[in-house]
Amino acid sequence: MAELFSFAIDHQDKTTRARCGRFETAHGTIRTPVFMPVGTQGAVKAVLPRDLSEMGAQVILANTYHLYLRPGAEVIERQGGLHRFAAWPGTLLTDSGGFQVFSLKALSELTEEGVRFQSHVDGSYHLLTPERSVEVQRALGSDIAMVLDVCPAADAPREEVSAALERSTRWADRCLEAHTRSDQALFGIVQGGLDPVLRRRHAEEIAARPFPGLAIGGLSVGEPPEKMWEAVAFTAPHLPAERPRYLMGVGTPEDLVRCIGHGIDMFDCVIPTRNARRGTVYTRSGKLNLRNARFRDDPAPLDPACGCLACREHSRAYLRHLVMAHEIGAGILCSIHNLTFYMDLIRAIRDAIELGRYGEFQADFLAGRGFG
Amino acid sequence: MAELFSFAIDHQDKTTRARCGRFETAHGTIRTPVFMPVGTQGAVKAVLPRDLSEMGAQVILANTYHLYLRPGAEVIERQGGLHRFAAWPGTLLTDSGGFQVFSLKALSELTEEGVRFQSHVDGSYHLLTPERSVEVQRALGSDIAMVLDVCPAADAPREEVSAALERSTRWADRCLEAHTRSDQALFGIVQGGLDPVLRRRHAEEIAARPFPGLAIGGLSVGEPPEKMWEAVAFTAPHLPAERPRYLMGVGTPEDLVRCIGHGIDMFDCVIPTRNARRGTVYTRSGKLNLRNARFRDDPAPLDPACGCLACREHSRAYLRHLVMAHEIGAGILCSIHNLTFYMDLIRAIRDAIELGRYGEFQADFLAGRGFG
Repeated sequence: MAELFSFAIDHQDKTTRARCGRFETAHGTIRTPVFMPVGTQGAVKAVLPRDLSEMGAQVILANTYHLYLRPGAEVIERQGGLHRFAAWPGTLLTDSGGFQVFSLKALSELTEEGVRFQSHVDGSYHLLTPERSVEVQRALGSDIAMVLDVCPAADAPREEVSAALERSTRWADRCLEAHTRSDQALFGIVQGGLDPVLRRRHAEEIAARPFPGLAIGGLSVGEPPEKMWEAVAFTAPHLPAERPRYLMGVGTPEDLVRCIGHGIDMFDCVIPTRNARRGTVYTRSGKLNLRNARFRDDPAPLDPACGCLACREHSRAYLRHLVMAHEIGAGILCSIHNLTFYMDLIRAIRDAIELGRYGEFQADFLAGRGFG
Repeated sequence: MAELFSFAIDHQDKTTRARCGRFETAHGTIRTPVFMPVGTQGAVKAVLPRDLSEMGAQVILANTYHLYLRPGAEVIERQGGLHRFAAWPGTLLTDSGGFQVFSLKALSELTEEGVRFQSHVDGSYHLLTPERSVEVQRALGSDIAMVLDVCPAADAPREEVSAALERSTRWADRCLEAHTRSDQALFGIVQGGLDPVLRRRHAEEIAARPFPGLAIGGLSVGEPPEKMWEAVAFTAPHLPAERPRYLMGVGTPEDLVRCIGHGIDMFDCVIPTRNARRGTVYTRSGKLNLRNARFRDDPAPLDPACGCLACREHSRAYLRHLVMAHEIGAGILCSIHNLTFYMDLIRAIRDAIELGRYGEFQADFLAGRGFG
């Protein structure tokens, strides 16, 4: 295996910024671009590790905020860390916990020291500092940890956002200082909302630090998708090409196809599993809402080109029935299907980049002609 | 394969009435005693067909009442029947729909013709007659269908129960008359509550009809378990030994161990899956409630002697976390475990009967010494 946290670019597309690469972690080599299913509480909702392995998932994301509150990082550490606790042998990424504190309206007080918040589980108060976030992620033992940053509201005044960026940079330094695990990569995060000047400034500041990977945070938080794509397009070039670029919390299949073209390597999102639990599934010919009566007598699989368990074994008619009858099996099967769709899409993207035809791939996909 | 619906007794225990046998259906030979997981709406809750196959489930029960209302028997028939619709290649048993009409308080009017009820799905009114129940089960295409019977309240006066039995016998004849599928066995049902005289009378009436199997209904509806065991003990001897005996809606592991000793061959019950979804799991050393704080740091599998996916891959500490965090995975893994426990228990019971030591097995199990 190559050196830990080394990132090798195997193919650089000519007409777009898309690239294929390999990022080395203590639990395996990640082939990029990669989509990381979200296992908020140490479990991808309704999908077991065996199914994640079968579909080719490489990295699972877990949320530090949730695991810190329940069952507690010390419980997981006593069980030998999150890999063992969650029975996931592949790579794990943990976020810093900051995004949930800011987005779940749990925020109580923000100071230079850190952020005080109230638990959604039992109402207790907690202080999350850069040092504490790194310490909790150390206990969880993820392969990739994220710095704690300040997430200003999307509509905050420019001066407030600017001050938040400066504080985020100071917190990034405190995270680097506190970080000790040699088997864990610590990624920096670039904020700056939809402002090209702020994004560039912060990207340059964060990229100047010795982070083995760099993330773009604070997008896909309610802005129109076009604005998000634009922000990715003007931010990614300021993140050095020789380190992996991770776009946090994104996105739809279209988001992935577009942002990979801007040079993004890593994604995570709850969309495929959340949609699945609501009976919305992805196919090569578009999204289907299984609640629609037209599927009542449809004997076809969700997607004839898909090889997942749901498509191998079950008809749309049956899956629609499970959705309508509120059966747990609907969530299980549709989640397996949607995540498999994302994995298949990412594999097709990697193939297209390797063949030097990502531009065509993008054009076909965005014109509704599906993929591979 | 032997003749359809033939029942061969391979071993008859000497000290108890327990026996091992084989019942032939169009979708395979059922080895008895057998426990049938319940798939009310055409799906065992949280457990996929591949997991049912892996644990050795032979028969799945589906509820005619639920499937008739949603998605509708005609939808399932158009998909080629319930086996294909639900992707279950093994044996299927459907009940008549009557029990739900009576027990879900959906009952609107009971006449000689049938029972009028209101749908719990959309409030619409429906008439269920013996002929209609058989017709719906014909459309579903189950391997074993059940007659429609009258289920009087457990505390109904004796005369009312007696009248209900007489009507049930007339309905049984109408079901036999209406039944046409040569690949589907129609089982009779014996009612009579906790009254030995009524049970005997009805058993003799129903056993006089050409049903290839006979069920005991109307038990485990709130009476103390000792009363239920007693009723099974005095009813089973009036069901001819050469036909399989099915105790409907029963029960706990102890119920199975006791009632098999009285000569029962078939069981179905929601207890293992319902308990699983509440975080209660069965082990060879007793029932565990995973909500109990003592499991927080317990690295052991649920049951060290169990080979199910949950026990192979996960610790009690992790499963407790999933239960406390309301993760769907808790219901999936605990359901797989509890059903596997039931399948293992039944296999151990069959082995003990074959070895001529079921008396010992019962004594050990009931003394809390678990099993094999």
